[in-house]
Order: sequence, then structure tokens, then C-alpha cells
Amino acid sequence: MKFFDCSTAPSPRQVRIFIAEKGINDIIETVEVNLRDGEQLTDSFRKINPYCTVPVLETDDGTRVYSTAGCCRYLEEAYPEPCLMGKTNEEKAIIADMQWRAEIDGLLAVGEALRNSAPGLKDRALTGPDNYSQIPDLAERGRKRVERFFSTMDQILQNKTYIAGSDFSYADITAYCAISFATRLKFDLPDNAMNLHRWFESINERASSKI
Amino acid sequence: MKFFDCSTAPSPRQVRIFIAEKGINDIIETVEVNLRDGEQLTDSFRKINPYCTVPVLETDDGTRVYSTAGCCRYLEEAYPEPCLMGKTNEEKAIIADMQWRAEIDGLLAVGEALRNSAPGLKDRALTGPDNYSQIPDLAERGRKRVERFFSTMDQILQNKTYIAGSDFSYADITAYCAISFATRLKFDLPDNAMNLHRWFESINERASSKI
Repeated sequence: MKFFDCSTAPSPRQVRIFIAEKGINDIIETVEVNLRDGEQLTDSFRKINPYCTVPVLETDDGTRVYSTAGCCRYLEEAYPEPCLMGKTNEEKAIIADMQWRAEIDGLLAVGEALRNSAPGLKDRALTGPDNYSQIPDLAERGRKRVERFFSTMDQILQNKTYIAGSDFSYADITAYCAISFATRLKFDLPDNAMNLHRWFESINERASSKI
Repeated sequence: MKFFDCSTAPSPRQVRIFIAEKGINDIIETVEVNLRDGEQLTDSFRKINPYCTVPVLETDDGTRVYSTAGCCRYLEEAYPEPCLMGKTNEEKAIIADMQWRAEIDGLLAVGEALRNSAPGLKDRALTGPDNYSQIPDLAERGRKRVERFFSTMDQILQNKTYIAGSDFSYADITAYCAISFATRLKFDLPDNAMNLHRWFESINERASSKI
């Protein structure tokens, strides 16, 4: 199995953490793709992934999936333990629900804030094969949405150890990658968001977050 | 089980079609939420869903999920036949992958185009509890992305009956809801997108699309 990764980007990081939590690093060949130099837009990478993004997972039979959703679903089904997407129907539904929220309200919002303002990403306001101009108002909206996401997550964590309940899950991985990326971009977690701080520090301590 | 729906909106439509395909309409109580009149922002609806959106699914034990992802995951696990999210690990991964793409590149793009331009949605450029101003450049970007989505889907359907392979799946449901909504907003499917036309007409014929 092959995993196309980029060590500095938040989307493939979700899959990297997922793999580490499953304890299957040894059976997966990781290929680093240099997004900074635009390797994802080269002809040779387009043959691997016409969408010009990472993560990509190539299974042993040659099947390729091009999204975190596809990669993590494959890994969960092929390596069910430790379980990261829930055991009961209700757990599975809540994890899918919270993972979706973390992706749409968290990860996409941070991406909007960054990609619509960073000088190095001019005309690259979206990932993928097409160029899109930056929209400054969208960067500003992204910043507001990140703040709202922080407060939403803090509320969710008020009576819970993890985002979707008492067990660490895929929803935590997505939320953590979004929030960790936001802090790298100098968003500060609000001082009074005590639940969020507690949770964030506990995920920071996991071995899977350090690779 | 209760399903909070809105008959004119594309996101809950995914769940409505999912329920119809499963043949479980009779055991689910559907509650129509009047988005046009802003019912989703009332105090009484906020008690049901603080995110002020539909779909919402409330299971018999009172668990609530607030996204299409959460609703469909619950329904697939609780009512596995007919299968809409794949049987083998590879099928499950490809369906998750394509469903994600249809949501991000299709449904969100149509939403961007509409919500950032429609006079009736001033200050409602995003769903949810917060008001966000419309960004005209984002409406324009959304329109470009919808065109790209049409051509991507046409290519994907070149050698396939359905979006994720030979069986109808959740990925078709999401792509269909996005594209059907786009056509209602006067986006025309390109004349030369023969695969897309063939697929779209076949989904239009399904009983689940008519309710």
C-alpha cells in the first residue's frame, strides 16, 4: 500500500495520524509530495492523481482514492482495530457527523483564511488543477469562521473527553488537524476555552501527533 | 425515528432519497422545516438543532445528528439493504471518496453560487446561526466550479454506469442533488456531456427522485 503525503499540509496529516493510530506504518510506503514546489501540478503527479492533491492512498490491488474521506474509510475497514469510526450505529453516526462538522466548519475555514491571503498562494485560492484568484473578503470570513469553530468545539467538549464521546475517533483527528494548523497560522485558542485547551493538549501528547 | 426535512433544499434531499431507496419511509416521521420563512432560526428549532440547519435525524433512542453525513451513516448501518455505501473495502472507500468530491466540488460550489448572489439570501451567504454578507466574487467562483464539476462528472461516467462503479450509491445521491439543484438555478448541462446526460436522466427516472 502506498500513501502520498505532504508533511506540512493539514489534509494528509489526518491520514498520517489515522495510520499511526492503527499502528500500520510498517506496511505502508509513504511518498512525500513537495507541495511547496508545486509537485502536485506536474505531469507525473497528475498521472497519479488528476485532482492534483494529497492525500492519495493506493491499495495493494491498485485502487486509488484521492480524499481523506476515502483513505480513512479504506483503512478503517481493512484494519478495524483500534476502532476510529465507532462501534454501534449511534457511535458511527455521531462520529461521521462530528467529523463532517470539523472538516466543513474547521478545516475548510482555516484553508479559506490562509489561501485567500498568503502572498505565496496568489492564484491558488483553492487546491486542485485550476487556478483561482484570492478573494480578500473570503480570507476575512474564514477568520471569523475559525473563531466560531473554536467556541463551538469548546462547547461540544464541555461534557465529553473527546469530540464524539468518550473515545478518541476520526472526528478528533480532523478537528485536531484543523486547530493545530490554525495555531501555526497564529490563531490563538481563546484563553477562556478551557475544554478546548484541555482536549488540544491531550491530543498533542499522543504519539500519532508527533510524526 | 424523526427526520427534519425541507422539500426545496438540496442537503436534506440527499437524506430523503436515501430513505426512499432504503424503503423505510413508513417508519420515519418527516417534519417539514420552512427555511423560506426562517423557521430554522427560531428559538424552538434551535432547541432541536443549534446549528440551525436541516437535515436532522433523531433516532428512537433520542440521538440526534445534524448533517447528511451523520444521517446517512446511521441509516446505512441500521438498514443495510439495499446497500448504498459499498460492500467490499474498496467499494466503501471509492464511494466515500466520490461522495466527498460530489459534496465539496458539487454541492458546496452550487451553494456558493446561489447564496452569494440571490437577493433573498442577503446576509445569509452561509447556512447556520451566524449571518455572513454575500461576496459577489465568490458567487462567480462558484459558477466556474459548477462548470468544472459538470465536466469532471462527465469524465468519471465515461466508463461507468454510476459515479462510483456499477452500482447506484450514496455518491450518486449527492452528485444528483447537486446537479439537479444547479439545473433549477439555470445552469445548463453542457450539450456534449453525453455521459452526464445519460446518468442524470437515469437518476431522474428513479422513484426516489420523485418524492
